[in-house]
Amino acid sequence: MTILDSTLRDGAQGTGIAFSVEDKLAAVRLLDQLGVAYIEAGNPGSNPKDQEFFRRAGELRLEHAQLAAFGSTRRKHVKAQEDPNLLSLAGAGTKVCVLFGKCWKFHVDHVLETTPEENLRMIRESCRFLRDRGKMVIFDGEHFFDGYKDDRDFALAALQAAAEGGAHQLCLCDTNGGAFPQEVGPVVEEVIGRFGLPVGVHFHNDCGMAVANSVMGVMAGAAQVQGTLLGFGERCGNANLAAVIPDLQLKLGIPCIPQERLQLLSHSAREMASIANLDLPDAMPYVGDNAFAHKAGMHADGVLKIPRSFEHVDPYLVGNARRFPASEISGRAVVLERLRRAFPRLRLESPEVREVLRDLKDLEAQGYQFEGADASFELLARKRLSPYPPFFQLLYYHIYTDYSEGRDRGASATVKVQVGGETRLMAAEGNGPVNALDQALRKALEIFYPVLSQVKLTDYKVRVLDSKSATAAGVRVLITSSYGAESYTTVGVSGDVVAASWKALEDSMEYLLLQTQTVGQSGE
Amino acid sequence: MTILDSTLRDGAQGTGIAFSVEDKLAAVRLLDQLGVAYIEAGNPGSNPKDQEFFRRAGELRLEHAQLAAFGSTRRKHVKAQEDPNLLSLAGAGTKVCVLFGKCWKFHVDHVLETTPEENLRMIRESCRFLRDRGKMVIFDGEHFFDGYKDDRDFALAALQAAAEGGAHQLCLCDTNGGAFPQEVGPVVEEVIGRFGLPVGVHFHNDCGMAVANSVMGVMAGAAQVQGTLLGFGERCGNANLAAVIPDLQLKLGIPCIPQERLQLLSHSAREMASIANLDLPDAMPYVGDNAFAHKAGMHADGVLKIPRSFEHVDPYLVGNARRFPASEISGRAVVLERLRRAFPRLRLESPEVREVLRDLKDLEAQGYQFEGADASFELLARKRLSPYPPFFQLLYYHIYTDYSEGRDRGASATVKVQVGGETRLMAAEGNGPVNALDQALRKALEIFYPVLSQVKLTDYKVRVLDSKSATAAGVRVLITSSYGAESYTTVGVSGDVVAASWKALEDSMEYLLLQTQTVGQSGE
Repeated sequence: MTILDSTLRDGAQGTGIAFSVEDKLAAVRLLDQLGVAYIEAGNPGSNPKDQEFFRRAGELRLEHAQLAAFGSTRRKHVKAQEDPNLLSLAGAGTKVCVLFGKCWKFHVDHVLETTPEENLRMIRESCRFLRDRGKMVIFDGEHFFDGYKDDRDFALAALQAAAEGGAHQLCLCDTNGGAFPQEVGPVVEEVIGRFGLPVGVHFHNDCGMAVANSVMGVMAGAAQVQGTLLGFGERCGNANLAAVIPDLQLKLGIPCIPQERLQLLSHSAREMASIANLDLPDAMPYVGDNAFAHKAGMHADGVLKIPRSFEHVDPYLVGNARRFPASEISGRAVVLERLRRAFPRLRLESPEVREVLRDLKDLEAQGYQFEGADASFELLARKRLSPYPPFFQLLYYHIYTDYSEGRDRGASATVKVQVGGETRLMAAEGNGPVNALDQALRKALEIFYPVLSQVKLTDYKVRVLDSKSATAAGVRVLITSSYGAESYTTVGVSGDVVAASWKALEDSMEYLLLQTQTVGQSGE
Repeated sequence: MTILDSTLRDGAQGTGIAFSVEDKLAAVRLLDQLGVAYIEAGNPGSNPKDQEFFRRAGELRLEHAQLAAFGSTRRKHVKAQEDPNLLSLAGAGTKVCVLFGKCWKFHVDHVLETTPEENLRMIRESCRFLRDRGKMVIFDGEHFFDGYKDDRDFALAALQAAAEGGAHQLCLCDTNGGAFPQEVGPVVEEVIGRFGLPVGVHFHNDCGMAVANSVMGVMAGAAQVQGTLLGFGERCGNANLAAVIPDLQLKLGIPCIPQERLQLLSHSAREMASIANLDLPDAMPYVGDNAFAHKAGMHADGVLKIPRSFEHVDPYLVGNARRFPASEISGRAVVLERLRRAFPRLRLESPEVREVLRDLKDLEAQGYQFEGADASFELLARKRLSPYPPFFQLLYYHIYTDYSEGRDRGASATVKVQVGGETRLMAAEGNGPVNALDQALRKALEIFYPVLSQVKLTDYKVRVLDSKSATAAGVRVLITSSYGAESYTTVGVSGDVVAASWKALEDSMEYLLLQTQTVGQSGE
């Protein structure tokens, strides 16, 4: 069983997705490390960016994966050796080419607007052209499942033409995403029996069936699944490989990637989301932040007793982790589990556990959410469990934002803080009010706590809480900070984006000081 | 075939989901309007909020749906008539009760920690207790599929106990989400054959199979699908009813909701997302913004010729719409389609189409994205196609944000604008810099253009573009405005959140003025 990842081709057809050449190179390295067999990386004939990519990708040293260039069969009534798209495929510098051609008569009649005979020639001659140039040719039968339902003989004749042209592998595509799981097996079996070539499957998710259909295809004998690591792609996306791979490998025992790489799956999914500048959906099977999050009190109790009671696989196998999100439904057991590392002496019966739970509910009612903000949750608990004098106190901040003479002039912030008996006034400029505030606060505090110069803010997210009142609505700000290899997230809520950001910034600094300083000790 | 929506119960177990009582009442009205048969609305024994909800829900006049209360069988070694949970179920005021009990021996041994015999008594007596009180009892066989694989006789005995207790319907639950499509049919068929009761199915999405499994269950004879409208729920969520319903009704011809209600599906999904304070995933099958978005140039060309060429169903049937997102892959045909309404004289060969495409690409390279911001796209095109004097011009803004004496004092903004030959200086306060800027700008412009007092900002979103540099990163701001029944979205990008917000605000006002005013005409 081989995996062909098409994140960089079909995935790039997802709305809102745009990869730079650097992004694409980073994604290739990531997918290679994960151990997929083929990376379909773009259409060298479609735009100059992909041409540059293929030039630079040739220099990568890949361990597992082969790069594949993707393109269509020749145009109608053009000689293969004169077709610009086939020439760019041949010249892309990849050993593997994925060539797509039409298998649905309706498309040939009405979209391509040519004769069935010319369509077969286009397929046969294009495969032959690439095969003769030493390429491994994967023929993607576009609209195969729809074509088969509409005119079976026509669809099979298209595959026959590809086989005659020397294609090494035939892939059955459900281009419009309308196939259902029970249809897949018989079609895959028939094609395997008829052509004796390895058969792949390529599903879209328009009916919510892409993962199921892919697995059904493999159970019927398919030798390749084409999909995208996070499932994004044209319209509703492609088969989500982050689900297909562990479904096949962990649940059915069918190897897709080297066994030891499976633990990279969750990390790879997060990296790919970051390359694509997307949030990884929390509920994504196997790899999402909540894939093993137990919110219902009864589920959390069960998992704390025996993980298998509410987990279909061990999260460790896919590099993910069990979580007990703090929430109104979860009970004391969950709070206890979250606090266990920092407060080993706590017991389920401890009154403090009940008190933290109450604080949590009060803050959640104000719009706080601690599920993604573990550092703020730990601070909240610490303040309740072992009060300590704060490391610093804000006296005031003033921020001035200015646009004049035709341009944005950024923002400047003045911050006055008190540490122990001393006060410190600092000012800084920034690209906008929050950045200016952050800069001024750091300058003021670094005098007392030099360790803060090593904290970096790595992500900043704003969520409007009640969208009905828009810019006057409450906002929740999440700030992710990193210190060395560690990364942690803090949260602030307010009617004002600057005040909410302040709270998250304050928690970020306080959390780090708590980890690294003795309370009350200054760095001076 | 009936649909049971569990958004308010299993959905509320999704991480990050929290419904107020008002939210729950709004969701009930929405689901009733959509025409689902049952709304599983919560566990009246679990918390005071759900108790209040059931009291108030009794006053709703529902057209299609019946409310169901959800709870577990009695505790071990407690009399049914003394079990607090059963008593609250009986007293919830709903005709329908969904009662869950254990069907997996492993759970009875290790989580429930009781004997198989006591487990069967718990199920039988709890069903009997509710049946005797006139309830319609749906028995949810928790972990049925895992239990069946592990110890078939035990799992079937649990259903037998429910049938003996008078349950009206048996539901087979895949509580841990590990089931695969090919397993479902035979189990459903066996249970139907054995008990002669209507059988439901309830799947979780941990393997990415919940929709497929639900459809397979119905094809094998199941009479009810339990799921949640947007698929959210514990861990990876439940079967997504927004996909299951059209899969069954449009593709297999199996009615789930009244046929004329199917066109409410996309609207209902968006409303539910808004109630849950979530973004509806763009790629969600059938109902997502991109479910019928054609980004690849070749797909867009095909759909423009004949929609069926790249659409598995007509988006109109589920109340969604075809879209041609502007993007680097899409070509002139797509730009033309987007501009057709506003500029009917344009042709594919018009040089202006090429120029708009070039502007678009330049702005996208700066971080703009017009896929969700149609109003800014139209403004961009208008500026290129028929330059006009702007309705107003910003001379400057100054914004002052203040925190002092222990509290956030909000922000004040001063804005100076020029309209025709006149200038106007205005100041306003707000909850934060962007709100203050918005208020001041409106005050200044309303003098010239009274129509602006009728524009409301209904949503405000901030996206950090390069999360690596956090608060100093570029940001993209999207503002949604409404004017009467119309709603439109504008976009701004800058290194500074205030400057990006300004650009989106400016487009919002300018777009409305363009729709309602003659250029250069003032309201005075």
